Amino acid sequence: MLCVRSLLRGCGQVMFQNNALAGLFFLAGILWGAWEAGMPQVAAGAAAGLAASTLAGYIMGEDSYEGLDGLWGFNGVLVGCALPLFLAPSWQMWAALVLCAMATTWVRRGLDMALGLVGTGSLTFPFVLMTWIFLLASGGLGGLEPASAPSQTAVPGFEPRLLAVWWLKGLSQVFLMDSWISGLLFLAGLAVSSLRAALWASAGSAMALGFAFAFGADGEVVSTGLFGYNAVLTAIALGSVAGTSGLRSVLWTVAAVLTALFVQYGVVSLTGVWGIPALTAPFCVATWLFVVPRRKSATL
Amino acid sequence: MLCVRSLLRGCGQVMFQNNALAGLFFLAGILWGAWEAGMPQVAAGAAAGLAASTLAGYIMGEDSYEGLDGLWGFNGVLVGCALPLFLAPSWQMWAALVLCAMATTWVRRGLDMALGLVGTGSLTFPFVLMTWIFLLASGGLGGLEPASAPSQTAVPGFEPRLLAVWWLKGLSQVFLMDSWISGLLFLAGLAVSSLRAALWASAGSAMALGFAFAFGADGEVVSTGLFGYNAVLTAIALGSVAGTSGLRSVLWTVAAVLTALFVQYGVVSLTGVWGIPALTAPFCVATWLFVVPRRKSATL
Amino acid sequence: MLCVRSLLRGCGQVMFQNNALAGLFFLAGILWGAWEAGMPQVAAGAAAGLAASTLAGYIMGEDSYEGLDGLWGFNGVLVGCALPLFLAPSWQMWAALVLCAMATTWVRRGLDMALGLVGTGSLTFPFVLMTWIFLLASGGLGGLEPASAPSQTAVPGFEPRLLAVWWLKGLSQVFLMDSWISGLLFLAGLAVSSLRAALWASAGSAMALGFAFAFGADGEVVSTGLFGYNAVLTAIALGSVAGTSGLRSVLWTVAAVLTALFVQYGVVSLTGVWGIPALTAPFCVATWLFVVPRRKSATL
Repeated sequence: MLCVRSLLRGCGQVMFQNNALAGLFFLAGILWGAWEAGMPQVAAGAAAGLAASTLAGYIMGEDSYEGLDGLWGFNGVLVGCALPLFLAPSWQMWAALVLCAMATTWVRRGLDMALGLVGTGSLTFPFVLMTWIFLLASGGLGGLEPASAPSQTAVPGFEPRLLAVWWLKGLSQVFLMDSWISGLLFLAGLAVSSLRAALWASAGSAMALGFAFAFGADGEVVSTGLFGYNAVLTAIALGSVAGTSGLRSVLWTVAAVLTALFVQYGVVSLTGVWGIPALTAPFCVATWLFVVPRRKSATL
Repeated sequence: MLCVRSLLRGCGQVMFQNNALAGLFFLAGILWGAWEAGMPQVAAGAAAGLAASTLAGYIMGEDSYEGLDGLWGFNGVLVGCALPLFLAPSWQMWAALVLCAMATTWVRRGLDMALGLVGTGSLTFPFVLMTWIFLLASGGLGGLEPASAPSQTAVPGFEPRLLAVWWLKGLSQVFLMDSWISGLLFLAGLAVSSLRAALWASAGSAMALGFAFAFGADGEVVSTGLFGYNAVLTAIALGSVAGTSGLRSVLWTVAAVLTALFVQYGVVSLTGVWGIPALTAPFCVATWLFVVPRRKSATL
Repeated sequence: MLCVRSLLRGCGQVMFQNNALAGLFFLAGILWGAWEAGMPQVAAGAAAGLAASTLAGYIMGEDSYEGLDGLWGFNGVLVGCALPLFLAPSWQMWAALVLCAMATTWVRRGLDMALGLVGTGSLTFPFVLMTWIFLLASGGLGGLEPASAPSQTAVPGFEPRLLAVWWLKGLSQVFLMDSWISGLLFLAGLAVSSLRAALWASAGSAMALGFAFAFGADGEVVSTGLFGYNAVLTAIALGSVAGTSGLRSVLWTVAAVLTALFVQYGVVSLTGVWGIPALTAPFCVATWLFVVPRRKSATL
């Protein structure tokens, strides 16, 4: 039972929810998204990554209260979503996925310690770092071939009724899903755990959509939801986790979300040179930029 | 009055001068350079960036002695010079400029704290980091288009009388200006505040020019002054701020300036892949590499 | 005599051996490899880099026990192997080599202090960082031209008798040599100083070779030994320096070596964009990722 709780909370912690029911909703959203994309290996990967990274925590003899709160698994489940989405299935891909997911649990400990010096944590950066390394490595390794791209659907022109679809897709890409139904399930999972988190997530995706129109973002970025997931995560992190009440805190969160959007388009340019995705790096960077200065001095 | 002092010293601090008169000279140099280039928006941007970043300090309730010494504004004025130089004017550009400039004041606090752990500070890196992010992001945002390149003037062949022009342009590029008259105004500003700073700045630009010839730098880099501004800043920082007297300190500064020149050409290669400028990153990196090891242990 | 000891140990410390005899074997391997490649300037560069970086330690007045243990010279000897391998001989190249090698001794002190905050050290990263800077800079400097590529030999097909050659070349590339005889000399040097280090180095190269076949690495990477040197260094660092006895420590080292192999192919992709080599950065990154989390908290 405790093991099931660790796993489900591991899923929930991707959006900062220390709540097994939220994790269950998130898992349902992953299942739906993988099925809709015709890529069952993404759902299998998520399960494998979650299990491998949680197992790594047990093997390493980490403090078990961290594991019970799902802090071993959230990077692993993201690794498990990402690798099968970008790499074709093969035994080498599955071996790489398990090693990569297990490594996040260990690496997180070091990154948390380093970032703890300036009063913040590693967020989902262990997932980002290890997935980048493995995707970059795949270029030189014949056993890790790129996944065949899903059949391109034409980018739809603007219609008001599509706004809700895009807004929900902004949420669904937190777990690398391109499905408004997954987005709805993720929102429901947030709502059962924390209404405040659900509201900030909604606001984050809406702000990102408005930004994409105002600043003229590419149509494909909008129609696949890639415009929004970093804003969603930043809004949850600063609005419902780090933030306090009051107008000042709200303005601070809004400024951070706006900055996160520039960071997002910037990181996409940066990583595009190697053909690798931005993942959740923009969220991590924007959150660090805004959280670290709140301390008056380094944590010594 | 205190507000004017904050603003002018904000300009002065770009070259480490806590002096309103120096700031006034620097502003004059920016005005001249923008007028000579036919880009009045660069001067307007400098004013807007300076005001926005200083305002951010007031809003954030930062310690006011920092603001009175111009430490809120120097990153913002550089953001204000850079964005209109590289991006075409539009309401989105001006909105981005204000957000980017304000963010530098906040981000600087975090970077200073992190770098304080190893006994150094963020220098102009908040400007570099935020400007890079916004320029990179512009690639994916239709509302932020590249500025039309100024009409290319042919690179002049070597003539001894051009040496003084190039030497002064090495100074003028500290504020992203390509004008020997601006360079002269910047040098005058330094001289009224600190003769030692003016001497080291002069020596830095001269060393950079000699280096460019000895190592065969590209003619355009020389004729636009881009060969020199990082050497100028490094020479001021190490020769007149961090340095002490004595031959040992002089040799140390010279070694740092030489290293800064390799760092400069290296960073230009690095950022060229994305088509973004090196800004003052080479100065920051070279200064960190030489200042940090002076401590015997981390600041704990 | 103390000076000779400093120099030889400086060579030995590249593979963590505080042992002058090991350093002598390593120097012999460099000499042989440079001769076999028809590039005597690589051997001269190694000697010059070793001398310049050790001299820098004396000039800087560093604690002499570090110098006596060879800690001033190991980054410099690597700089001296690398620059003449990638840049054509010219007076500018030799001037750059001396400055770059001397800078590593100074820069190392700062990097060690910064990394000491999270309980690790700079390893060979001063060499990597400074060499990257100088190689990147060479692109914009006509005085630093690329070395003419050695005549391409056809990549041999797989033959069992070649396995031993490749396995030894994995070792030889620690000093950027492509020669199985150099690899044998390096292994002999390790063995006279520490049998445990020699065994882990052997195991590291063997694991890297197995990995290259299993994951389908490019044939040229295998036939030149570039598949293996980061695994060798990681295996020595974690297996014989940081590691303790026991199955847990062995498993931890094996996981680190496997991760180092992904990091290696990843860094090769990363730096390939600029046409610069990965050097020993993958070893540094993998070692940091695995060593840092062993601390319970930051070193305060």
